[in-house]
Amino acid sequence: MSNATRVTADLCVSLDGIAAGHDQSVEHPFGSRIGFRLHTWIMEHAEDHPEELAALNAASAYVMGRNMFGPDRGDWDLDWTGWWGPEPDYHAPVFVLGHRPRPTVELAGGTSFTFVTDGIEAALKLAREAAGDGTVSIAGGPSTLNAYLRAGLVDELRLHVVPIVIGEGIRVFDGVEDGTWTPVSSRTTPEVTHVTWRAVRG
Amino acid sequence: MSNATRVTADLCVSLDGIAAGHDQSVEHPFGSRIGFRLHTWIMEHAEDHPEELAALNAASAYVMGRNMFGPDRGDWDLDWTGWWGPEPDYHAPVFVLGHRPRPTVELAGGTSFTFVTDGIEAALKLAREAAGDGTVSIAGGPSTLNAYLRAGLVDELRLHVVPIVIGEGIRVFDGVEDGTWTPVSSRTTPEVTHVTWRAVRG
Repeated sequence: MSNATRVTADLCVSLDGIAAGHDQSVEHPFGSRIGFRLHTWIMEHAEDHPEELAALNAASAYVMGRNMFGPDRGDWDLDWTGWWGPEPDYHAPVFVLGHRPRPTVELAGGTSFTFVTDGIEAALKLAREAAGDGTVSIAGGPSTLNAYLRAGLVDELRLHVVPIVIGEGIRVFDGVEDGTWTPVSSRTTPEVTHVTWRAVRG
Repeated sequence: MSNATRVTADLCVSLDGIAAGHDQSVEHPFGSRIGFRLHTWIMEHAEDHPEELAALNAASAYVMGRNMFGPDRGDWDLDWTGWWGPEPDYHAPVFVLGHRPRPTVELAGGTSFTFVTDGIEAALKLAREAAGDGTVSIAGGPSTLNAYLRAGLVDELRLHVVPIVIGEGIRVFDGVEDGTWTPVSSRTTPEVTHVTWRAVRG
């Protein structure tokens, strides 16, 4: 395990800091009030955000929460291999947090999903080992990112602030009590404001 | 009343969107957890933010909440004329929301504080009349700004995002259920990220 491995995180949030609703489902992966409104800049305007999207997909290993991999119906549906089809954009090992073990899923293009049942630090350790000199990205969702923020384990945070107000849902930094960051960069586009901060270690 | 008068608002917020604590007092105007940490960029680095500070003080009339004018001890202390000394930076009429009338305070340099007891729309109407062709600024605090945001009365919102996490307090957009904005600009400095949005009227 290299503690020098940089840990990044990208999250699409509303102007009021919300990244997902409390009612996430197969039909509404980000919640029914949100739909895909926080992701239209990626789905419809990708060509206007090449650097941010390259950074988003630049990690050498990823960690994600159980719900981001797929719907939880009480046990694993072994036919479900994630939302991203046969060749996900990760092209790297992805470590999925959860409570129930299941076999690793190997997909085309170098993406694998490995299921980790012993907590966020164990998952990050595996991801760091897999990343080597590369970076590890906390891929989401917001509850998972907040767990890593609470533990002080995120080095660089990139929020993609979509200019809508949602009013209710899971907010970035929910349950995080303090922390100091350094502003790194910001860029305004017609669809979204990209803002990056780096953690200051006390 | 000119409905064409532009209504702006500036607010200093933490990375988690908090602008003040719930325990505001004379000793801690922004709450004990916060102190002046959201305002050090103004108090100690003003020379690095000339455009943002000029914009902050450019309005031709202001509206502010009761608590921003001064501590509420149950009745008006008529010797209290605001936090800003004998010549406040406003240099314009300021309309203070509240429940109890008191006489207008006239200070040097063109600042006056007029007390409005019949609600946010009445205060904004008076400020618009006073501003003429100029802009009206909602000067704060966050609860007052949120009341105007809920009513859809803010045209341009400028958040000055200070890179600290506070965890608990009054958050911008608390109680605002929806809304669509257009990103206008952003600028990163070592102390703060300045981000501006303009309201999209449905």
